[in-house]
Amino acid sequence: MRYALGVDIGGTSIKCSFVSESGEMVSRFSFGVNRKAPQNAIFDELVEAIENKLPFFGKDFVGIGVGCPGGINPEKGTCDYATNLGWKDFPIAPMLEKHFEKPCFIENDANAALLGEIYFGVAKNYKNVVFLTLGTGVGSGLYLNGHIFSGNEGKGAELGHTSIELNGRLCGCGRRGCLECYASASALTKDAAWAMAHHPESKMWDYCKTPERMNGAIVFEAEKQGDETAKEVVREYISYLGEGCLNFCNAFRPEAIILGGGVARQGEYLRSKVQDYLDRNRYGLLRVNPPKTKVLISALGSDAGIYGAAALCFEGLKQGQR
Amino acid sequence: MRYALGVDIGGTSIKCSFVSESGEMVSRFSFGVNRKAPQNAIFDELVEAIENKLPFFGKDFVGIGVGCPGGINPEKGTCDYATNLGWKDFPIAPMLEKHFEKPCFIENDANAALLGEIYFGVAKNYKNVVFLTLGTGVGSGLYLNGHIFSGNEGKGAELGHTSIELNGRLCGCGRRGCLECYASASALTKDAAWAMAHHPESKMWDYCKTPERMNGAIVFEAEKQGDETAKEVVREYISYLGEGCLNFCNAFRPEAIILGGGVARQGEYLRSKVQDYLDRNRYGLLRVNPPKTKVLISALGSDAGIYGAAALCFEGLKQGQR
Repeated sequence: MRYALGVDIGGTSIKCSFVSESGEMVSRFSFGVNRKAPQNAIFDELVEAIENKLPFFGKDFVGIGVGCPGGINPEKGTCDYATNLGWKDFPIAPMLEKHFEKPCFIENDANAALLGEIYFGVAKNYKNVVFLTLGTGVGSGLYLNGHIFSGNEGKGAELGHTSIELNGRLCGCGRRGCLECYASASALTKDAAWAMAHHPESKMWDYCKTPERMNGAIVFEAEKQGDETAKEVVREYISYLGEGCLNFCNAFRPEAIILGGGVARQGEYLRSKVQDYLDRNRYGLLRVNPPKTKVLISALGSDAGIYGAAALCFEGLKQGQR
Repeated sequence: MRYALGVDIGGTSIKCSFVSESGEMVSRFSFGVNRKAPQNAIFDELVEAIENKLPFFGKDFVGIGVGCPGGINPEKGTCDYATNLGWKDFPIAPMLEKHFEKPCFIENDANAALLGEIYFGVAKNYKNVVFLTLGTGVGSGLYLNGHIFSGNEGKGAELGHTSIELNGRLCGCGRRGCLECYASASALTKDAAWAMAHHPESKMWDYCKTPERMNGAIVFEAEKQGDETAKEVVREYISYLGEGCLNFCNAFRPEAIILGGGVARQGEYLRSKVQDYLDRNRYGLLRVNPPKTKVLISALGSDAGIYGAAALCFEGLKQGQR
């Protein structure tokens, strides 16, 4: 059995594991990231953590895959920038390759997580998949014609920054109406807090004493209990997310859209509502029989990053990129 | 020099030519399509037209490429439906292949036109390109990672049916807010006619006696003459088209967006306005140096379809698809 080392770099921690081709995780480890440390210090820490683990793992491994936030150049193996980490022009893959004398592959974190779902998760053997993470923002990955799609200069797709409303909500990116401002967990929480504040009769008051303590789980729970205010918030949320997904259906004609991130913890309850929205509204429904896009919930959750990083290595070796 | 036969099927006519690998058109011909005729009768007419032309062409050709409206399955070589032509489950490529004993390739018309621009037109050697035709509707083609992207079931991208406004204008497809309702030539004409009707002082009255005679060229002409009403209509049109293009920039990270169709006859005047809109608003502008997407105007115009059909044949042979 062949193993790859998956390295999932996040804003607060780096999670690693050796992963077999059949998806078995061995010798998992992680450590916190000091955002104020220079990037080379973090690299040294990563190398040391890996070397400390090697005797316990006790086997050979075929290479390393890295999922990293920010702007990644998969061909050069560099992290061109990662705003949250303060990284810039960081040739992390070539440096790992040189140190361990193993091939190393890097992709942006969302694309890596998507590859995890395709190798080991909910979308095995799919060829055209859109991946959305509904968290603080709306992250995205694209798998088209059986390959990760990195776009021009490898900067990845920013589906969370496609606009669904002219002159809509102001986004942190400077644009108005971005999907992220409507379909992220943060947006859902803000909308629910606002609705709660204006509806003293809402059951959401029983779940949290002040609107500031609102979260996505609360509004879904209150909605299931039949609270009218929560029902309206969820209905609106589904229509926002649904409109975004419909745009991606018509643009990419994917076989599946995978939902991950905090809101996706609602699982089948969320999935069936979004699926229903797509089925009722997809392009060409009235005249022809359009391709149906399945809505799926991420199967790997917060482990998608590690699995995906390892998958990236297996995939890169298969395609002979190193 | 190798030649391919390009066949561009449209709603009113079928245009054909032999095209050399260097982009020379030889023995061009076309004929009207009787929409009421059964599809097999049209096929017989096409075969006869080609056979009549062969003695005049007098050379061998390597194969046939077909650009066709509607839902195309490039793998099977079928037109699954073409609403405007009344076609259904039409195996046009295998039928041509059998008759002429030459390989035949088929794609939807917008994808074929895009391939024409990549082989012979404005986007030579580009790898990631979005093509939009601004006509009666907004048609689209996608070229990603150096290949035509046909999507799931080969139904092609419908970028004109991505929504830019929640609960926006009602589209013929059943959805609301579709880009087509804002950025097509028809939408521009309607918006200009409405503005003219409400502004008796507008110079547009000098160009057409009634709002019903409005067209896209008139509003641009009046705008260039400094007419305030026309300026507002064009400003709004550019923001609609710009928002759509920005969505495609953030979703596909293309090197270029090519504009074709009626509105694109405005050429550099239109191009520079859209380019400026993208340059000022593209994602990540404030924090990082995002990839820049070039706006280009179709170089082949209404011939893109024939060129593209021939290119489809050269491309298919290169990739060994037949």
